[in-house]
Amino acid sequence: MNKYTIGIDFGTLSGRSVLINVADGNELATEVLDYPHGVMDSRLPDGTKLGADWALQHPDDYLEVLKKTIPAILTKAGIRAENVIGVGIDFTACTVMPVKADGTPLCKMPGFSGEPNAWIKLWKHHATQPEANKLNEIAKKQGQKFLDRYGGKISSEWLVPKVWQTLNEAPQVYHEADRFIEAADWVIWQLTGRERRNTCTAGYKAMWHKHDGYPGDDFFASLHPELRNLVSSKLSTDLFPAGTRAGEITGKAAGLTGLKEGTAVAVANVDAHVSVPAVGITGPGKMLMIMGTSTCHMVLGEKEINVPGMCGVVEDGIIDGYFAYEAGQSCVGDHFQWFVENCVPGEYFSGAEEKGLDIHELLAARAERLKPGESGLLALDWWNGNRSVLVDVDLSGMMLGMTLATRPEEIYRALVEASAYGTRMIIDTFETNGVPVNELYAAGGIAGKNPLIMQIYADITNREIKISGSPQAPALGSAMFGAVAAGKDRGGYDNIFEAAKLMAKIKDRVYKPSPGNVIVYDKLYSEYRTLHDYFGRGENNVMKRLKDIKKQINII
Amino acid sequence: MNKYTIGIDFGTLSGRSVLINVADGNELATEVLDYPHGVMDSRLPDGTKLGADWALQHPDDYLEVLKKTIPAILTKAGIRAENVIGVGIDFTACTVMPVKADGTPLCKMPGFSGEPNAWIKLWKHHATQPEANKLNEIAKKQGQKFLDRYGGKISSEWLVPKVWQTLNEAPQVYHEADRFIEAADWVIWQLTGRERRNTCTAGYKAMWHKHDGYPGDDFFASLHPELRNLVSSKLSTDLFPAGTRAGEITGKAAGLTGLKEGTAVAVANVDAHVSVPAVGITGPGKMLMIMGTSTCHMVLGEKEINVPGMCGVVEDGIIDGYFAYEAGQSCVGDHFQWFVENCVPGEYFSGAEEKGLDIHELLAARAERLKPGESGLLALDWWNGNRSVLVDVDLSGMMLGMTLATRPEEIYRALVEASAYGTRMIIDTFETNGVPVNELYAAGGIAGKNPLIMQIYADITNREIKISGSPQAPALGSAMFGAVAAGKDRGGYDNIFEAAKLMAKIKDRVYKPSPGNVIVYDKLYSEYRTLHDYFGRGENNVMKRLKDIKKQINII
Repeated sequence: MNKYTIGIDFGTLSGRSVLINVADGNELATEVLDYPHGVMDSRLPDGTKLGADWALQHPDDYLEVLKKTIPAILTKAGIRAENVIGVGIDFTACTVMPVKADGTPLCKMPGFSGEPNAWIKLWKHHATQPEANKLNEIAKKQGQKFLDRYGGKISSEWLVPKVWQTLNEAPQVYHEADRFIEAADWVIWQLTGRERRNTCTAGYKAMWHKHDGYPGDDFFASLHPELRNLVSSKLSTDLFPAGTRAGEITGKAAGLTGLKEGTAVAVANVDAHVSVPAVGITGPGKMLMIMGTSTCHMVLGEKEINVPGMCGVVEDGIIDGYFAYEAGQSCVGDHFQWFVENCVPGEYFSGAEEKGLDIHELLAARAERLKPGESGLLALDWWNGNRSVLVDVDLSGMMLGMTLATRPEEIYRALVEASAYGTRMIIDTFETNGVPVNELYAAGGIAGKNPLIMQIYADITNREIKISGSPQAPALGSAMFGAVAAGKDRGGYDNIFEAAKLMAKIKDRVYKPSPGNVIVYDKLYSEYRTLHDYFGRGENNVMKRLKDIKKQINII
Repeated sequence: MNKYTIGIDFGTLSGRSVLINVADGNELATEVLDYPHGVMDSRLPDGTKLGADWALQHPDDYLEVLKKTIPAILTKAGIRAENVIGVGIDFTACTVMPVKADGTPLCKMPGFSGEPNAWIKLWKHHATQPEANKLNEIAKKQGQKFLDRYGGKISSEWLVPKVWQTLNEAPQVYHEADRFIEAADWVIWQLTGRERRNTCTAGYKAMWHKHDGYPGDDFFASLHPELRNLVSSKLSTDLFPAGTRAGEITGKAAGLTGLKEGTAVAVANVDAHVSVPAVGITGPGKMLMIMGTSTCHMVLGEKEINVPGMCGVVEDGIIDGYFAYEAGQSCVGDHFQWFVENCVPGEYFSGAEEKGLDIHELLAARAERLKPGESGLLALDWWNGNRSVLVDVDLSGMMLGMTLATRPEEIYRALVEASAYGTRMIIDTFETNGVPVNELYAAGGIAGKNPLIMQIYADITNREIKISGSPQAPALGSAMFGAVAAGKDRGGYDNIFEAAKLMAKIKDRVYKPSPGNVIVYDKLYSEYRTLHDYFGRGENNVMKRLKDIKKQINII
């Protein structure tokens, strides 16, 4: 009898359950539910207004995903619940909520439904920038070495700025909350009845380190006296690496989901990170790029090295026994979308409609006819600042080489090339610092849909690129960890290495660098590097000064 | 009885006659004729194919302008020919033709109508680039000091490269031609029966100097042995400054035009230069910008100084007794047009249509709401290379400061600002080298139509800008010189100073710099300068290297 696992991917706007065959990783059924409350960025459900840069979620939405999508995939595939041996989940992170000791979200407690800080702060809640700035300033002054693991800066998206904002703005929420917990870990708690947190979010988003633990109480006290006991009183030092069995489906959870009580549940994981084994990466030298609005780069290493400008390095953060490195580019799909919305003439849209293409496909088709170097254009891909390797949100976009003959598809291609140069800069920085990157894998919307972009990345990085075989790599990865949580005895696997061998998926089409293009792009990349350093490393800080002038103008 | 003069402006695609009241410069009538043969850039009238970058004209078209438009304005205004005391003309330059000793164009001689080099080479005939390159190389090697008067480079548009191409490609044309003459001077010859050439085109386009004359015969011989006697045999050293009476309308010309035999005719002039007195400039310190697809900057000085990067300095070149300096920006209106054609979303066009605006007006209206510095953008206006002050066609455009919030009207404004910074760079270079520029005047399409652009120029240059009162400044200027050619005795003026006092026209609206904007733009200009020098003066020649790569790609 075949055995199955379920991977559940909690995204920004929806949750998706996927039913996977344990033997071969094949997908049998998938079901998506848009969160009924979506992203709350202007008002709470009771009408309370939110400030700028707020982004909240509703905990009921996550439970609704479990309730609706799990029974749906079982029905669709005609699979009985007793043949489902495990469940794994992944989540956008850092998505943090205050809860009571029994797991009740604070926003559902009497008197708190109108208090914004009592709700779930989604990863892209950015109203915490003042706290993040202050934290970075203090940590830098104290010479806190944890900063080096995060490219020198803690993001406003991460856990401590979010908790600190709560204390600053709604101290009663801070005091009433028994726990601050990742939504990912909270869902596991709802499924298993146990608070079992994962090492991945703790390591990447909460400054935890396998050997050094969290920053010391003195550090937290230097932020705010009442934060001194944050770790011991409201977080947890009991953390479990991916694939660990968090527990089993409780009777209550069985009622909610239609799964059998006792089904194994893996500890939660971050959506990007769980995709790494889903494409078959379980060892060093292979970088996975999750290419969507932004790109997240992950690679495993055998030692802990502080590579400049990365987003984080966490021991056992992705695959047990390895140091998992993360880097990022802030603006990839966003960049192309900006271009399409702001810089493309109407005739291109009508041309696309005539041919039955979407506008990106039309631009790609026209850009594909150009040879490397033919446009004479070169850009710096910093429309949304630079995450890795410069870690500087105040940088901005640049393009040069335009003439009166420059056409939209040339600009489009130059933007694609710029993002590929940015990736090569990240790869070079890893390699220069002793973390090899021999081969690339890509997942996410762009990887599956845009062959031009993938070929340009292969040519510019001079590396083969394999593409995720599943369009739902996170869900597949979660399902794989669900199979590991079940273990061999129940028809799963003893570890992720075995699971990956049989369940991981990549497409047949591999993008191989074209030697002629590699030669031209090497020259262009060397120009990119010069400009990258000139504008990005302090030789000419014009981008920052322009932003300063802009700020002063906006104040007047 | 009122007296009148006629100014005739020969442009690239049409000729225009304007009837002007001598007393006050008021315009009574205007008439335009599109050249029947337009610009011949693919075929001759007999079907002979032309190569790339050729641009020829037909001499009959110029005569047709005289024949059709002069009678038309007299009729329109109800003025009798005997009250027209003078005629002046201006022309695009350098527009050169080979003719026989009696003035017959070679293209009209038997056996030559199918030979491209026998026709008139229009200013924008660029197939002479190889000759221009070789000329510059040889002149530089010989240390020819005339190069300094032209920013170090002779343009492919100028006379000697055009004549040399004729000798190289069609030696029989070169030998059969008794004269090589500016079309401007040829038209004067047709009106007066006399070959009387002007100093303006000779000085700016044929390397002539009031005291040094043309380059020596040895120099011409070093280009090609048969060019040794070019000056003495086929050009002329009898040159006359603007306002000189070239002669009088002949009986034949009276028959053609309807003017009275004996009407005074001024020597010809260049369209841009003749506009200077038309706005009332007859002395130093006042710069006229003719703002169209490109911008031409003219200012008078009291000494001959080799200002780096100017297009030329000619004694008596515009106003007798002064050194006339010319500088230029290669890409102004062209730049905005490129943007509109390649980078503006369809919704902007439909928005413009709804409001009854053209797209430039809509963009200007939206850009006008932005404060200086608010977009955070900064551009180098080199889409068509840089004429002054870098004299480098291999430079290209650059823009930086883009974010995901950048909007089309912000980019549009940044392009306008970039062209204004380019103008300020030219002004600063003049002033640093001892040619003062206290005040600005503007003529041409942009000056009259786009208040946003003019205000930005005033703010960025921190100078008042007066606008030409006549939309036909060249024709008005020509008419003024016609009145001077007639002289006081016949109801005109003795010199251009007197004519300008009464006939020149500027609009009431003067653009004054806004002190707050000046402060912000000073900061932005200083950033522009840094980037101008970084990319333009050799610190980072990336633009040239990208063009080299592009050329190599195109060869493959």
